[in-house]
Amino acid sequence: MIMTTQELVAQIKKKKSFLCIGLDVDLTKIPPHLLDEEDPIFAFNKAIIDATHQLCVAYKPNIAFYEAYGLKAWLSLEKTINYLNKSYPEIFTIADAKRGDIGNTSTMYAKAFFEDLKFDSVTIAPYMGKDSVEPFLAFKNKHTIILALTSNKGAFDFQTKKIDGKELYKHVLETSKTWENSENLMYVVGATKAEYFKEIRKIVPNSFLLVPGVGAQGGSLQDVCKYGLSSTIGLLVNSSRGIIYASNEKDFAAKAALQAEVLQKEMATFL
Amino acid sequence: MIMTTQELVAQIKKKKSFLCIGLDVDLTKIPPHLLDEEDPIFAFNKAIIDATHQLCVAYKPNIAFYEAYGLKAWLSLEKTINYLNKSYPEIFTIADAKRGDIGNTSTMYAKAFFEDLKFDSVTIAPYMGKDSVEPFLAFKNKHTIILALTSNKGAFDFQTKKIDGKELYKHVLETSKTWENSENLMYVVGATKAEYFKEIRKIVPNSFLLVPGVGAQGGSLQDVCKYGLSSTIGLLVNSSRGIIYASNEKDFAAKAALQAEVLQKEMATFL
Repeated sequence: MIMTTQELVAQIKKKKSFLCIGLDVDLTKIPPHLLDEEDPIFAFNKAIIDATHQLCVAYKPNIAFYEAYGLKAWLSLEKTINYLNKSYPEIFTIADAKRGDIGNTSTMYAKAFFEDLKFDSVTIAPYMGKDSVEPFLAFKNKHTIILALTSNKGAFDFQTKKIDGKELYKHVLETSKTWENSENLMYVVGATKAEYFKEIRKIVPNSFLLVPGVGAQGGSLQDVCKYGLSSTIGLLVNSSRGIIYASNEKDFAAKAALQAEVLQKEMATFL
Repeated sequence: MIMTTQELVAQIKKKKSFLCIGLDVDLTKIPPHLLDEEDPIFAFNKAIIDATHQLCVAYKPNIAFYEAYGLKAWLSLEKTINYLNKSYPEIFTIADAKRGDIGNTSTMYAKAFFEDLKFDSVTIAPYMGKDSVEPFLAFKNKHTIILALTSNKGAFDFQTKKIDGKELYKHVLETSKTWENSENLMYVVGATKAEYFKEIRKIVPNSFLLVPGVGAQGGSLQDVCKYGLSSTIGLLVNSSRGIIYASNEKDFAAKAALQAEVLQKEMATFL
Protein backbone atom coordinates (compact mmCIF):
# COMPACT_ATOMS: atom_id res chain seq x y z
CA MET A 1 0.00 0.00 0.00
CA ILE A 2 2.10 2.86 -1.28
CA MET A 3 0.41 6.06 -0.28
CA THR A 4 1.94 8.80 -2.40
CA THR A 5 3.44 9.12 -5.87
CA GLN A 6 6.69 10.16 -4.13
CA GLU A 7 6.85 6.76 -2.50
CA LEU A 8 6.11 5.10 -5.83
CA VAL A 9 8.98 7.04 -7.44
CA ALA A 10 11.27 5.98 -4.58
CA GLN A 11 10.37 2.33 -5.19
CA ILE A 12 11.05 2.70 -8.91
CA LYS A 13 14.49 4.15 -8.19
CA LYS A 14 15.27 1.48 -5.65
CA LYS A 15 14.23 -1.43 -7.89
CA LYS A 16 15.36 0.23 -11.12
CA SER A 17 12.04 -0.83 -12.54
CA PHE A 18 8.78 0.80 -13.52
CA LEU A 19 7.24 -2.50 -14.46
CA CYS A 20 3.62 -3.29 -13.70
CA ILE A 21 2.54 -6.91 -14.06
CA GLY A 22 -1.01 -7.55 -15.19
CA LEU A 23 -2.71 -10.37 -13.33
CA ASP A 24 -5.19 -11.34 -16.04
CA VAL A 25 -5.82 -14.88 -14.95
CA ASP A 26 -7.38 -17.03 -17.65
CA LEU A 27 -8.08 -20.55 -16.41
CA THR A 28 -7.52 -21.94 -19.91
CA LYS A 29 -3.98 -20.54 -19.95
CA ILE A 30 -2.57 -21.23 -16.49
CA PRO A 31 -0.51 -24.38 -15.87
CA PRO A 32 -2.96 -27.31 -15.78
CA HIS A 33 -1.51 -28.73 -12.56
CA LEU A 34 -2.84 -25.65 -10.70
CA LEU A 35 -6.41 -26.61 -11.54
CA ASP A 36 -6.18 -29.25 -8.78
CA GLU A 37 -5.60 -26.54 -6.18
CA GLU A 38 -8.50 -25.40 -4.03
CA ASP A 39 -8.16 -21.87 -5.43
CA PRO A 40 -6.26 -22.09 -8.75
CA ILE A 41 -6.44 -18.35 -9.44
CA PHE A 42 -4.98 -17.35 -6.10
CA ALA A 43 -2.38 -20.12 -6.27
CA PHE A 44 -1.30 -18.81 -9.67
CA ASN A 45 -1.23 -15.16 -8.55
CA LYS A 46 0.67 -15.94 -5.35
CA ALA A 47 3.34 -17.89 -7.20
CA ILE A 48 3.74 -15.15 -9.82
CA ILE A 49 3.88 -12.43 -7.16
CA ASP A 50 6.38 -14.29 -4.99
CA ALA A 51 8.63 -14.84 -8.00
CA THR A 52 8.44 -11.35 -9.50
CA HIS A 53 7.84 -8.79 -6.74
CA GLN A 54 11.44 -7.58 -6.70
CA LEU A 55 11.40 -6.93 -10.42
CA CYS A 56 8.27 -4.79 -10.57
CA VAL A 57 6.67 -1.97 -8.63
CA ALA A 58 3.01 -2.65 -9.35
CA TYR A 59 0.44 -5.36 -10.01
CA LYS A 60 -2.72 -4.82 -11.98
CA PRO A 61 -5.46 -7.44 -11.76
CA ASN A 62 -7.85 -7.01 -14.65
CA ILE A 63 -11.18 -7.17 -12.90
CA ALA A 64 -13.01 -8.62 -15.92
CA PHE A 65 -11.15 -11.88 -15.62
CA TYR A 66 -12.32 -12.30 -12.05
CA GLU A 67 -15.91 -11.28 -12.72
CA ALA A 68 -16.09 -13.76 -15.57
CA TYR A 69 -15.55 -16.64 -13.15
CA GLY A 70 -18.17 -15.51 -10.68
CA LEU A 71 -18.16 -15.43 -6.91
CA LYS A 72 -15.26 -17.82 -6.40
CA ALA A 73 -12.97 -15.60 -8.44
CA TRP A 74 -14.01 -12.51 -6.48
CA LEU A 75 -12.77 -14.37 -3.45
CA SER A 76 -9.52 -15.08 -5.33
CA LEU A 77 -9.22 -11.36 -6.10
CA GLU A 78 -9.82 -10.48 -2.47
CA LYS A 79 -7.18 -12.98 -1.37
CA THR A 80 -4.74 -11.63 -3.96
CA ILE A 81 -5.05 -7.99 -2.92
CA ASN A 82 -4.93 -8.92 0.77
CA TYR A 83 -1.81 -11.00 0.16
CA LEU A 84 -0.17 -8.12 -1.72
CA ASN A 85 -1.02 -5.56 0.95
CA LYS A 86 0.18 -7.79 3.76
CA SER A 87 3.29 -9.39 2.27
CA TYR A 88 4.48 -6.65 -0.06
CA PRO A 89 3.14 -3.32 1.22
CA GLU A 90 5.69 -1.47 -0.93
CA ILE A 91 3.85 -2.60 -4.08
CA PHE A 92 1.46 -0.26 -5.87
CA THR A 93 -1.84 -1.96 -6.68
CA ILE A 94 -4.14 -1.15 -9.58
CA ALA A 95 -7.70 -2.40 -9.99
CA ASP A 96 -8.07 -2.38 -13.77
CA ALA A 97 -11.81 -1.94 -13.73
CA LYS A 98 -12.46 0.89 -16.22
CA ARG A 99 -15.47 2.03 -14.23
CA GLY A 100 -17.36 5.31 -14.44
CA ASP A 101 -20.94 6.24 -13.60
CA ILE A 102 -23.02 9.10 -12.19
CA GLY A 103 -21.91 10.61 -8.90
CA ASN A 104 -23.51 8.43 -6.23
CA THR A 105 -22.70 5.28 -8.21
CA SER A 106 -19.09 6.28 -8.72
CA THR A 107 -18.87 6.76 -4.97
CA MET A 108 -20.03 3.16 -4.54
CA TYR A 109 -17.38 1.91 -6.99
CA ALA A 110 -14.71 4.00 -5.25
CA LYS A 111 -15.68 2.45 -1.93
CA ALA A 112 -15.57 -1.03 -3.47
CA PHE A 113 -12.03 -0.67 -4.77
CA PHE A 114 -10.44 1.78 -2.33
CA GLU A 115 -12.06 0.82 0.96
CA ASP A 116 -13.39 -2.70 0.65
CA LEU A 117 -10.61 -4.21 -1.46
CA LYS A 118 -7.97 -1.61 -0.47
CA PHE A 119 -6.44 -1.05 -3.88
CA ASP A 120 -4.15 1.96 -4.28
CA SER A 121 -5.71 2.91 -7.59
CA VAL A 122 -8.44 2.15 -10.09
CA THR A 123 -8.84 2.73 -13.83
CA ILE A 124 -11.78 4.88 -14.96
CA ALA A 125 -13.45 5.67 -18.31
CA PRO A 126 -13.90 9.43 -18.84
CA TYR A 127 -16.95 9.44 -21.14
CA MET A 128 -19.36 10.62 -18.43
CA GLY A 129 -17.19 13.56 -17.42
CA LYS A 130 -16.33 15.41 -14.25
CA ASP A 131 -19.01 14.25 -11.82
CA SER A 132 -18.34 10.62 -12.72
CA VAL A 133 -14.63 10.94 -11.84
CA GLU A 134 -14.50 13.37 -8.92
CA PRO A 135 -16.00 10.87 -6.43
CA PHE A 136 -12.88 8.75 -6.98
CA LEU A 137 -10.55 11.74 -6.67
CA ALA A 138 -12.00 12.58 -3.27
CA PHE A 139 -10.14 9.66 -1.69
CA LYS A 140 -6.88 10.92 -0.19
CA ASN A 141 -3.71 9.13 -1.27
CA LYS A 142 -5.68 6.95 -3.66
CA HIS A 143 -5.07 7.28 -7.38
CA THR A 144 -7.54 7.48 -10.23
CA ILE A 145 -6.21 6.40 -13.61
CA ILE A 146 -8.29 7.81 -16.46
CA LEU A 147 -8.34 6.24 -19.91
CA ALA A 148 -6.81 8.84 -22.23
CA LEU A 149 -5.46 7.07 -25.30
CA THR A 150 -5.88 3.31 -25.19
CA SER A 151 -3.76 0.67 -26.92
CA ASN A 152 -6.49 -0.91 -29.04
CA LYS A 153 -7.60 -0.23 -32.60
CA GLY A 154 -10.89 1.23 -31.40
CA ALA A 155 -8.92 4.12 -29.89
CA PHE A 156 -9.16 5.70 -33.33
CA ASP A 157 -12.97 5.56 -33.37
CA PHE A 158 -13.45 8.44 -30.96
CA GLN A 159 -10.33 9.21 -28.86
CA THR A 160 -8.32 10.68 -31.72
CA LYS A 161 -11.19 12.55 -33.33
CA LYS A 162 -10.71 16.31 -33.27
CA ILE A 163 -12.82 18.77 -31.30
CA ASP A 164 -11.95 22.37 -32.18
CA GLY A 165 -8.79 21.12 -33.87
CA LYS A 166 -7.66 19.03 -30.91
CA GLU A 167 -8.08 15.31 -30.34
CA LEU A 168 -10.66 14.12 -27.81
CA TYR A 169 -8.00 12.44 -25.65
CA LYS A 170 -6.20 15.77 -25.30
CA HIS A 171 -9.45 17.37 -24.18
CA VAL A 172 -9.76 14.58 -21.63
CA LEU A 173 -6.23 15.30 -20.36
CA GLU A 174 -6.74 19.08 -20.23
CA THR A 175 -10.24 19.06 -18.81
CA SER A 176 -9.42 16.51 -16.12
CA LYS A 177 -6.63 18.77 -14.84
CA THR A 178 -9.28 21.28 -13.79
CA TRP A 179 -11.18 18.79 -11.63
CA GLU A 180 -11.05 18.83 -7.84
CA ASN A 181 -8.17 16.84 -6.35
CA SER A 182 -6.72 16.36 -9.83
CA GLU A 183 -3.34 15.72 -8.19
CA ASN A 184 -4.70 12.20 -7.65
CA LEU A 185 -4.96 11.58 -11.39
CA MET A 186 -2.89 9.29 -13.57
CA TYR A 187 -3.63 8.36 -17.20
CA VAL A 188 -3.73 5.28 -19.39
CA VAL A 189 -1.74 5.81 -22.59
CA GLY A 190 -1.13 2.86 -24.90
CA ALA A 191 2.44 1.93 -25.86
CA THR A 192 1.23 1.15 -29.36
CA LYS A 193 0.94 4.89 -29.90
CA ALA A 194 4.38 5.96 -28.64
CA GLU A 195 4.65 8.90 -31.03
CA TYR A 196 1.75 10.54 -29.16
CA PHE A 197 3.66 10.69 -25.87
CA LYS A 198 5.48 13.87 -26.88
CA GLU A 199 2.20 15.74 -27.27
CA ILE A 200 0.79 14.19 -24.12
CA ARG A 201 3.79 15.30 -22.06
CA LYS A 202 3.11 18.91 -23.14
CA ILE A 203 -0.25 18.67 -21.40
CA VAL A 204 0.65 16.51 -18.39
CA PRO A 205 4.43 16.92 -17.99
CA ASN A 206 4.69 15.09 -14.67
CA SER A 207 1.65 12.88 -14.29
CA PHE A 208 2.12 9.15 -14.05
CA LEU A 209 1.13 7.33 -17.21
CA LEU A 210 0.07 3.69 -17.05
CA VAL A 211 1.21 2.17 -20.32
CA PRO A 212 -0.31 -1.07 -21.62
CA GLY A 213 0.54 -2.55 -24.98
CA VAL A 214 4.24 -3.37 -24.58
CA GLY A 215 4.90 -6.93 -25.73
CA ALA A 216 1.85 -8.91 -26.84
CA GLN A 217 0.24 -5.81 -28.35
CA GLY A 218 3.43 -4.71 -30.12
CA GLY A 219 4.48 -1.48 -28.39
CA SER A 220 8.17 -0.61 -28.01
CA LEU A 221 9.60 0.13 -24.57
CA GLN A 222 12.34 2.26 -26.07
CA ASP A 223 9.89 4.55 -27.86
CA VAL A 224 7.72 4.84 -24.77
CA CYS A 225 10.71 5.86 -22.65
CA LYS A 226 12.10 8.24 -25.26
CA TYR A 227 8.94 10.33 -25.29
CA GLY A 228 7.23 9.36 -22.07
CA LEU A 229 9.75 9.62 -19.24
CA SER A 230 9.27 12.71 -17.10
CA SER A 231 11.66 14.37 -14.67
CA THR A 232 10.14 12.20 -11.94
CA ILE A 233 9.91 9.12 -14.18
CA GLY A 234 6.13 9.21 -14.48
CA LEU A 235 5.77 5.85 -16.18
CA LEU A 236 4.33 2.51 -15.21
CA VAL A 237 4.70 0.08 -18.09
CA ASN A 238 2.41 -2.91 -17.95
CA SER A 239 2.98 -6.36 -19.31
CA SER A 240 0.50 -9.16 -18.71
CA ARG A 241 0.46 -12.17 -21.03
CA GLY A 242 4.15 -11.87 -22.02
CA ILE A 243 5.14 -12.42 -18.40
CA ILE A 244 2.50 -14.49 -16.66
CA TYR A 245 2.05 -17.00 -19.50
CA ALA A 246 5.76 -17.39 -20.30
CA SER A 247 5.33 -21.08 -19.48
CA ASN A 248 2.42 -23.27 -18.49
CA GLU A 249 4.61 -25.97 -16.95
CA LYS A 250 5.56 -26.38 -13.30
CA ASP A 251 8.32 -23.80 -13.83
CA PHE A 252 5.80 -21.07 -14.79
CA ALA A 253 6.71 -18.70 -11.94
CA ALA A 254 10.45 -18.92 -12.59
CA LYS A 255 9.87 -18.36 -16.32
CA ALA A 256 7.63 -15.39 -15.54
CA ALA A 257 10.44 -13.94 -13.41
CA LEU A 258 12.89 -14.36 -16.28
CA GLN A 259 10.57 -12.44 -18.61
CA ALA A 260 10.02 -9.77 -16.00
CA GLU A 261 13.78 -9.49 -15.55
CA VAL A 262 14.28 -8.90 -19.27
CA LEU A 263 11.93 -5.93 -19.10
CA GLN A 264 13.37 -4.71 -15.76
CA LYS A 265 16.93 -4.78 -17.12
CA GLU A 266 15.85 -2.84 -20.19
CA MET A 267 14.04 -0.33 -17.97
CA ALA A 268 17.16 0.11 -15.81
CA THR A 269 19.03 1.41 -18.87
CA PHE A 270 16.51 4.23 -19.25
CA LEU A 271 16.58 5.37 -15.63
CA MET B 1 -35.33 -13.86 -20.16
CA ILE B 2 -36.88 -12.08 -23.08
CA MET B 3 -34.94 -13.04 -26.18
CA THR B 4 -35.80 -10.50 -28.83
CA THR B 5 -36.79 -6.85 -28.99
CA GLN B 6 -40.06 -8.03 -30.58
CA GLU B 7 -40.88 -9.90 -27.39
CA LEU B 8 -39.97 -6.86 -25.34
CA VAL B 9 -42.32 -4.72 -27.44
CA ALA B 10 -45.07 -7.32 -26.95
CA GLN B 11 -44.59 -7.15 -23.17
CA ILE B 12 -44.75 -3.36 -23.25
CA LYS B 13 -48.02 -3.46 -25.16
CA LYS B 14 -49.47 -6.11 -22.87
CA LYS B 15 -48.56 -4.29 -19.66
CA LYS B 16 -49.04 -0.79 -21.11
CA SER B 17 -45.74 0.06 -19.52
CA PHE B 18 -42.18 0.71 -20.64
CA LEU B 19 -41.01 1.15 -17.08
CA CYS B 20 -37.66 -0.17 -15.94
CA ILE B 21 -37.04 -0.28 -12.20
CA GLY B 22 -33.49 0.31 -11.03
CA LEU B 23 -32.45 -2.02 -8.22
CA ASP B 24 -29.78 0.24 -6.68
CA VAL B 25 -29.77 -1.22 -3.23
CA ASP B 26 -28.18 1.04 -0.64
CA LEU B 27 -28.12 -0.57 2.81
CA THR B 28 -28.43 2.83 4.46
CA LYS B 29 -31.71 3.47 2.65
CA ILE B 30 -33.62 0.19 2.80
CA PRO B 31 -36.14 -0.41 5.60
CA PRO B 32 -34.14 -1.08 8.78
CA HIS B 33 -36.16 -4.18 9.67
CA LEU B 34 -34.66 -5.94 6.62
CA LEU B 35 -31.18 -5.69 8.09
CA ASP B 36 -32.11 -8.59 10.37
CA GLU B 37 -32.63 -10.85 7.35
CA GLU B 38 -29.91 -13.27 6.35
CA ASP B 39 -29.59 -11.53 2.98
CA PRO B 40 -31.07 -8.02 3.31
CA ILE B 41 -30.29 -7.05 -0.29
CA PHE B 42 -32.04 -10.05 -1.81
CA ALA B 43 -34.93 -9.76 0.65
CA PHE B 44 -35.38 -6.15 -0.44
CA ASN B 45 -35.12 -6.93 -4.16
CA LYS B 46 -37.48 -9.89 -3.95
CA ALA B 47 -40.14 -7.86 -2.15
CA ILE B 48 -39.82 -5.00 -4.65
CA ILE B 49 -39.94 -7.37 -7.62
CA ASP B 50 -42.93 -9.32 -6.30
CA ALA B 51 -44.83 -6.09 -5.72
CA THR B 52 -43.99 -4.33 -9.00
CA HIS B 53 -43.40 -6.92 -11.73
CA GLN B 54 -46.79 -6.37 -13.36
CA LEU B 55 -46.20 -2.63 -13.62
CA CYS B 56 -42.81 -2.74 -15.34
CA VAL B 57 -41.11 -4.66 -18.13
CA ALA B 58 -37.50 -4.49 -16.95
CA TYR B 59 -35.27 -4.43 -13.88
CA LYS B 60 -31.84 -2.88 -13.83
CA PRO B 61 -29.52 -3.69 -10.94
CA ASN B 62 -26.74 -1.13 -10.78
CA ILE B 63 -23.71 -3.34 -10.39
CA ALA B 64 -21.73 -0.72 -8.44
CA PHE B 65 -24.04 -1.04 -5.48
CA TYR B 66 -23.39 -4.77 -5.29
CA GLU B 67 -19.64 -4.50 -5.79
CA ALA B 68 -19.43 -1.94 -3.02
CA TYR B 69 -20.66 -4.48 -0.49
CA GLY B 70 -18.24 -7.18 -1.55
CA LEU B 71 -18.72 -10.91 -2.01
CA LYS B 72 -21.94 -11.19 -0.06
CA ALA B 73 -23.63 -8.69 -2.32
CA TRP B 74 -22.45 -10.51 -5.44
CA LEU B 75 -24.30 -13.49 -4.07
CA SER B 76 -27.35 -11.25 -3.57
CA LEU B 77 -27.04 -10.12 -7.19
CA GLU B 78 -26.81 -13.72 -8.37
CA LYS B 79 -29.87 -14.65 -6.33
CA THR B 80 -31.75 -11.64 -7.69
CA ILE B 81 -31.10 -12.40 -11.35
CA ASN B 82 -31.81 -16.10 -10.82
CA TYR B 83 -35.07 -15.23 -9.10
CA LEU B 84 -36.07 -12.92 -11.94
CA ASN B 85 -35.20 -15.46 -14.64
CA LYS B 86 -37.04 -18.25 -12.88
CA SER B 87 -40.13 -16.50 -11.50
CA TYR B 88 -40.64 -13.80 -14.11
CA PRO B 89 -39.04 -14.95 -17.38
CA GLU B 90 -41.05 -12.34 -19.29
CA ILE B 91 -39.00 -9.58 -17.63
CA PHE B 92 -36.08 -7.93 -19.48
CA THR B 93 -32.98 -7.73 -17.30
CA ILE B 94 -30.25 -5.12 -17.53
CA ALA B 95 -26.87 -5.31 -15.82
CA ASP B 96 -26.03 -1.64 -15.41
CA ALA B 97 -22.29 -2.16 -15.40
CA LYS B 98 -20.94 0.45 -17.84
CA ARG B 99 -18.08 -1.83 -18.83
CA GLY B 100 -15.75 -1.60 -21.82
CA ASP B 101 -12.21 -2.82 -22.38
CA ILE B 102 -9.98 -4.27 -25.09
CA GLY B 103 -11.26 -7.25 -27.06
CA ASN B 104 -10.31 -10.26 -24.97
CA THR B 105 -11.29 -8.46 -21.76
CA SER B 106 -14.65 -7.38 -23.14
CA THR B 107 -15.26 -11.01 -24.02
CA MET B 108 -14.65 -11.90 -20.36
CA TYR B 109 -17.12 -9.23 -19.21
CA ALA B 110 -19.66 -10.40 -21.78
CA LYS B 111 -19.35 -13.95 -20.47
CA ALA B 112 -19.72 -12.72 -16.88
CA PHE B 113 -22.99 -10.91 -17.54
CA PHE B 114 -24.55 -12.89 -20.40
CA GLU B 115 -23.49 -16.45 -19.58
CA ASP B 116 -22.61 -16.62 -15.92
CA LEU B 117 -25.29 -14.27 -14.56
CA LYS B 118 -27.66 -14.70 -17.55
CA PHE B 119 -28.67 -11.06 -17.94
CA ASP B 120 -30.48 -10.10 -21.15
CA SER B 121 -28.40 -6.96 -21.56
CA VAL B 122 -25.52 -4.93 -20.21
CA THR B 123 -24.58 -1.24 -20.36
CA ILE B 124 -21.26 -0.34 -22.01
CA ALA B 125 -19.09 2.79 -22.25
CA PRO B 126 -18.06 3.57 -25.83
CA TYR B 127 -14.77 5.44 -25.24
CA MET B 128 -12.57 2.54 -26.40
CA GLY B 129 -14.43 2.08 -29.67
CA LYS B 130 -15.44 -0.78 -31.93
CA ASP B 131 -13.25 -3.63 -30.71
CA SER B 132 -14.30 -2.96 -27.11
CA VAL B 133 -18.01 -3.29 -27.96
CA GLU B 134 -18.18 -5.96 -30.68
CA PRO B 135 -17.35 -8.83 -28.29
CA PHE B 136 -20.64 -8.05 -26.52
CA LEU B 137 -22.57 -7.77 -29.78
CA ALA B 138 -21.45 -11.26 -30.78
CA PHE B 139 -23.88 -12.81 -28.29
CA LYS B 140 -27.07 -13.75 -30.08
CA ASN B 141 -30.31 -12.41 -28.58
CA LYS B 142 -28.39 -10.49 -25.95
CA HIS B 143 -28.47 -6.70 -25.97
CA THR B 144 -25.67 -4.20 -25.58
CA ILE B 145 -26.69 -0.79 -24.33
CA ILE B 146 -24.10 1.86 -25.17
CA LEU B 147 -23.84 5.12 -23.27
CA ALA B 148 -24.72 7.83 -25.78
CA LEU B 149 -25.89 10.90 -23.89
CA THR B 150 -26.00 10.42 -20.14
CA SER B 151 -28.21 12.18 -17.62
CA ASN B 152 -25.49 13.77 -15.51
CA LYS B 153 -23.87 17.20 -15.68
CA GLY B 154 -20.59 15.70 -16.84
CA ALA B 155 -22.31 14.70 -20.09
CA PHE B 156 -21.44 18.21 -21.27
CA ASP B 157 -17.70 17.72 -20.65
CA PHE B 158 -17.14 15.50 -23.69
CA GLN B 159 -20.36 13.93 -25.05
CA THR B 160 -21.79 17.16 -26.43
CA LYS B 161 -18.51 18.53 -27.78
CA LYS B 162 -18.49 18.85 -31.55
CA ILE B 163 -16.32 16.82 -33.92
CA ASP B 164 -16.59 18.10 -37.50
CA GLY B 165 -19.65 20.11 -36.49
CA LYS B 166 -21.41 17.17 -34.86
CA GLU B 167 -21.58 16.21 -31.19
CA LEU B 168 -19.51 13.27 -29.96
CA TYR B 169 -22.61 11.36 -28.83
CA LYS B 170 -23.98 11.55 -32.39
CA HIS B 171 -20.70 10.13 -33.69
CA VAL B 172 -21.10 7.33 -31.15
CA LEU B 173 -24.62 6.62 -32.43
CA GLU B 174 -23.63 6.75 -36.10
CA THR B 175 -20.37 4.86 -35.81
CA SER B 176 -21.85 2.11 -33.66
CA LYS B 177 -24.47 1.41 -36.35
CA THR B 178 -21.64 0.23 -38.64
CA TRP B 179 -20.38 -2.38 -36.15
CA GLU B 180 -20.98 -6.09 -36.60
CA ASN B 181 -24.27 -7.33 -35.14
CA SER B 182 -25.31 -3.73 -34.49
CA GLU B 183 -28.92 -4.94 -34.45
CA ASN B 184 -28.13 -5.97 -30.86
CA LEU B 185 -27.50 -2.36 -29.81
CA MET B 186 -29.58 -0.14 -27.58
CA TYR B 187 -28.53 3.27 -26.21
CA VAL B 188 -28.56 5.17 -22.93
CA VAL B 189 -30.05 8.63 -23.37
CA GLY B 190 -30.74 10.76 -20.30
CA ALA B 191 -34.25 12.11 -19.71
CA THR B 192 -32.73 15.33 -18.44
CA LYS B 193 -31.88 16.13 -22.04
CA ALA B 194 -35.27 15.46 -23.63
CA GLU B 195 -34.84 18.11 -26.34
CA TYR B 196 -32.03 16.00 -27.79
CA PHE B 197 -34.31 13.03 -28.49
CA LYS B 198 -35.54 14.56 -31.76
CA GLU B 199 -32.02 14.64 -33.17
CA ILE B 200 -31.23 11.20 -31.80
CA ARG B 201 -34.29 9.68 -33.46
CA LYS B 202 -33.01 10.95 -36.81
CA ILE B 203 -29.93 8.75 -36.36
CA VAL B 204 -31.49 5.72 -34.64
CA PRO B 205 -35.19 5.90 -35.56
CA ASN B 206 -36.13 2.50 -34.13
CA SER B 207 -33.46 1.51 -31.59
CA PHE B 208 -34.47 1.02 -28.01
CA LEU B 209 -33.33 3.86 -25.76
CA LEU B 210 -32.81 3.25 -22.06
CA VAL B 211 -33.72 6.50 -20.37
CA PRO B 212 -32.50 7.29 -16.86
CA GLY B 213 -33.09 10.60 -15.16
CA VAL B 214 -36.88 10.65 -14.83
CA GLY B 215 -37.85 11.56 -11.28
CA ALA B 216 -34.97 12.11 -8.85
CA GLN B 217 -32.81 13.65 -11.57
CA GLY B 218 -35.57 15.92 -12.86
CA GLY B 219 -36.41 14.59 -16.33
CA SER B 220 -39.97 14.82 -17.69
CA LEU B 221 -41.71 11.67 -18.94
CA GLN B 222 -43.93 13.73 -21.22
CA ASP B 223 -40.98 15.34 -23.00
CA VAL B 224 -39.20 12.02 -23.35
CA CYS B 225 -42.26 10.43 -24.94
CA LYS B 226 -43.00 13.39 -27.18
CA TYR B 227 -39.60 13.17 -28.87
CA GLY B 228 -38.45 9.66 -28.02
CA LEU B 229 -41.26 7.25 -28.86
CA SER B 230 -40.63 5.33 -32.07
CA SER B 231 -43.08 3.41 -34.25
CA THR B 232 -42.21 0.31 -32.21
CA ILE B 233 -42.14 2.24 -28.92
CA GLY B 234 -38.34 2.00 -28.52
CA LEU B 235 -38.23 3.35 -24.97
CA LEU B 236 -37.38 1.90 -21.59
CA VAL B 237 -37.71 4.59 -18.95
CA ASN B 238 -35.88 3.87 -15.75
CA SER B 239 -36.73 5.01 -12.26
CA SER B 240 -34.75 3.85 -9.26
CA ARG B 241 -34.82 5.87 -6.06
CA GLY B 242 -38.27 7.38 -6.69
CA ILE B 243 -39.78 3.90 -6.63
CA ILE B 244 -37.67 1.64 -4.45
CA TYR B 245 -37.22 4.14 -1.63
CA ALA B 246 -40.79 5.43 -1.60
CA SER B 247 -40.99 4.24 2.01
CA ASN B 248 -38.55 2.69 4.42
CA GLU B 249 -41.24 1.26 6.66
CA LYS B 250 -42.70 -2.25 6.58
CA ASP B 251 -44.99 -1.13 3.75
CA PHE B 252 -42.05 -0.30 1.47
CA ALA B 253 -42.96 -2.79 -1.27
CA ALA B 254 -46.59 -1.65 -1.44
CA LYS B 255 -45.48 1.99 -1.55
CA ALA B 256 -42.99 1.17 -4.28
CA ALA B 257 -45.79 -0.43 -6.28
CA LEU B 258 -47.90 2.71 -5.85
CA GLN B 259 -45.10 4.86 -7.24
CA ALA B 260 -44.51 2.42 -10.10
CA GLU B 261 -48.23 2.53 -10.86
CA VAL B 262 -48.19 6.32 -11.11
CA LEU B 263 -45.51 6.07 -13.80
CA GLN B 264 -47.17 3.10 -15.50
CA LYS B 265 -50.49 4.92 -15.72
CA GLU B 266 -48.80 7.96 -17.21
CA MET B 267 -46.97 5.73 -19.69
CA ALA B 268 -50.23 4.07 -20.72
CA THR B 269 -51.51 7.45 -21.92
CA PHE B 270 -48.64 7.72 -24.38
CA LEU B 271 -49.00 4.23 -25.88
